[in-house]
Amino acid sequence: MSLSIDSSSQVLENGYEHAELLSGNNDEHEGVMVNMEKPMDSKVFLTALRASISLWRKQGKRGVWIKLPIGLANLIESAVKEGFHYHHAEPDYLMLVHWISESTTSTIPANATHRVGIGAIVMNDKRELLVVQEKSGKLKGTGIWKIPTGVVDAGEDIFKAAVREVKEETNVSDKCLIMHFTVNVKLCFQVSHSSVGGLSKSWFLLLQIDTEFVEILGFRQTHKSFFEKSDLFFLCMMRPLSFDVQKQELEIDAAKWMPFEEYTAQQIVEKPGFYKCITDICLAKVDGDYIGFSPRLVKSSFTDQLSYFYLNEQDSNSS
Amino acid sequence: MSLSIDSSSQVLENGYEHAELLSGNNDEHEGVMVNMEKPMDSKVFLTALRASISLWRKQGKRGVWIKLPIGLANLIESAVKEGFHYHHAEPDYLMLVHWISESTTSTIPANATHRVGIGAIVMNDKRELLVVQEKSGKLKGTGIWKIPTGVVDAGEDIFKAAVREVKEETNVSDKCLIMHFTVNVKLCFQVSHSSVGGLSKSWFLLLQIDTEFVEILGFRQTHKSFFEKSDLFFLCMMRPLSFDVQKQELEIDAAKWMPFEEYTAQQIVEKPGFYKCITDICLAKVDGDYIGFSPRLVKSSFTDQLSYFYLNEQDSNSS
Repeated sequence: MSLSIDSSSQVLENGYEHAELLSGNNDEHEGVMVNMEKPMDSKVFLTALRASISLWRKQGKRGVWIKLPIGLANLIESAVKEGFHYHHAEPDYLMLVHWISESTTSTIPANATHRVGIGAIVMNDKRELLVVQEKSGKLKGTGIWKIPTGVVDAGEDIFKAAVREVKEETNVSDKCLIMHFTVNVKLCFQVSHSSVGGLSKSWFLLLQIDTEFVEILGFRQTHKSFFEKSDLFFLCMMRPLSFDVQKQELEIDAAKWMPFEEYTAQQIVEKPGFYKCITDICLAKVDGDYIGFSPRLVKSSFTDQLSYFYLNEQDSNSS
Repeated sequence: MSLSIDSSSQVLENGYEHAELLSGNNDEHEGVMVNMEKPMDSKVFLTALRASISLWRKQGKRGVWIKLPIGLANLIESAVKEGFHYHHAEPDYLMLVHWISESTTSTIPANATHRVGIGAIVMNDKRELLVVQEKSGKLKGTGIWKIPTGVVDAGEDIFKAAVREVKEETNVSDKCLIMHFTVNVKLCFQVSHSSVGGLSKSWFLLLQIDTEFVEILGFRQTHKSFFEKSDLFFLCMMRPLSFDVQKQELEIDAAKWMPFEEYTAQQIVEKPGFYKCITDICLAKVDGDYIGFSPRLVKSSFTDQLSYFYLNEQDSNSS
């Protein structure tokens, strides 16, 4: 889709003779989507927009969308003057919308309201927990060891995000570069080298842990996490795909296996609160009969679209 | 926070003498938030912005946020020229951000990626399901009866949204208005009146059903639901707070109690797919031992902030 000058000379009833028209794609809800791509003078745009809206109204269109790349910020003011408001924005574009139908109520869908994150519980067969130290954020520099966490991207399945984040958070190659290493080895990499930074003892780097998703143990919803937006944090149980990773002893490392009791003895984890809640539920899973939600691939009832439905799979056949 | 002309005449090293400065609030991450409120000429704004950024850099600021109400769309282009990009937008404002620190990596948080919705299973003691017909959307006019669904607002708890949506979706007062009624009665309202629109038989309006949240039975994550955004749909089990609501017989009504078997016999519900999945899980809950997630109020480990953690409460003490 792109802006084009309509080749057919048109005389519209309201007097917009020979006006340029914006080209848009029709959607299935009597809407029009205009995807602006080329630079344009704001006055030319305004004239074309007015003529186009007039035509779309005659055609029975209801919602008009305009996607403006950030390079076309000069056109925003004109659109706003014509009655458009903002729908959403991403770093490189702004989406505007205008309900031009005068006889119907707007059915413009809501904007995204939530950010989604995951926390991953990864325990090995020695009852050690995979923990990391934050490189930024409020825990940076506190010495606190925590479970790997991260953000689920738009379009990414929660359980896949958990696998990806564990791998990324346990990738300490940044640290290695500082030490003039260029390592790219999975899981566990032993170095015994006295010439590196004056270090003399053996140590282990814990790199890019691969895991398998087990289930979602629970989730937390918080509000006003960022401006007016809310957060959903999914606590995921993961199974490490290797159990022989050894504890590394180099202090600068950002990830390691830690005995579970050592982890829970940290003050922030021990005191009542969300971290305590996480360890309680972890124990209920490891030592008890706790059942969380597992993803089941389900087809839409209307289309062929597949998506994951997370449910208590063990209880789901209990009726 | 508002834009103000800094009263102290300042000579900055880079030559911005006596330049107007934007006033901003510092945040806890070495950031500045400029909340523009008053109209301003875009050239004056550009000069003030340049001088302010120069000053903020000297002060060690890293991220600069500018919130522009839609009425100040004339200032967007200047901000973009100075290196700002979009962070997010709501109908009436645009948030721009610029990482001005040259020695650190951006830690600007992600934008919201998901819309959140609920679906409510409400069954009475006669094994009837509360069903509605969609007033808009793809099911409009199809005659299909479905469970009440709706959107969770930013800042709204999922379980509270479920209660609200059931109440709203079962509010058929719109219909009543068409019939020259102004009713605002809860639950069940019997009318036997031959003078209204020529109707002669008794009928019942089912209005604003109050429910109690039981638990979340599962949730579905779908992608590209709208542009690039994803959706999270939480299936909620609800308990009606009254069981004596009677089936209404007026065809125009948008909500009613329907025998569960009649509901599941609808073709869209019966065939394999998400709707079928919903009824299976509903049966596992009603006739079996299915356990979903319940909200537990939990305090943050860092602040006094309270939020809800949804977990399998029954299994959580199993360790």
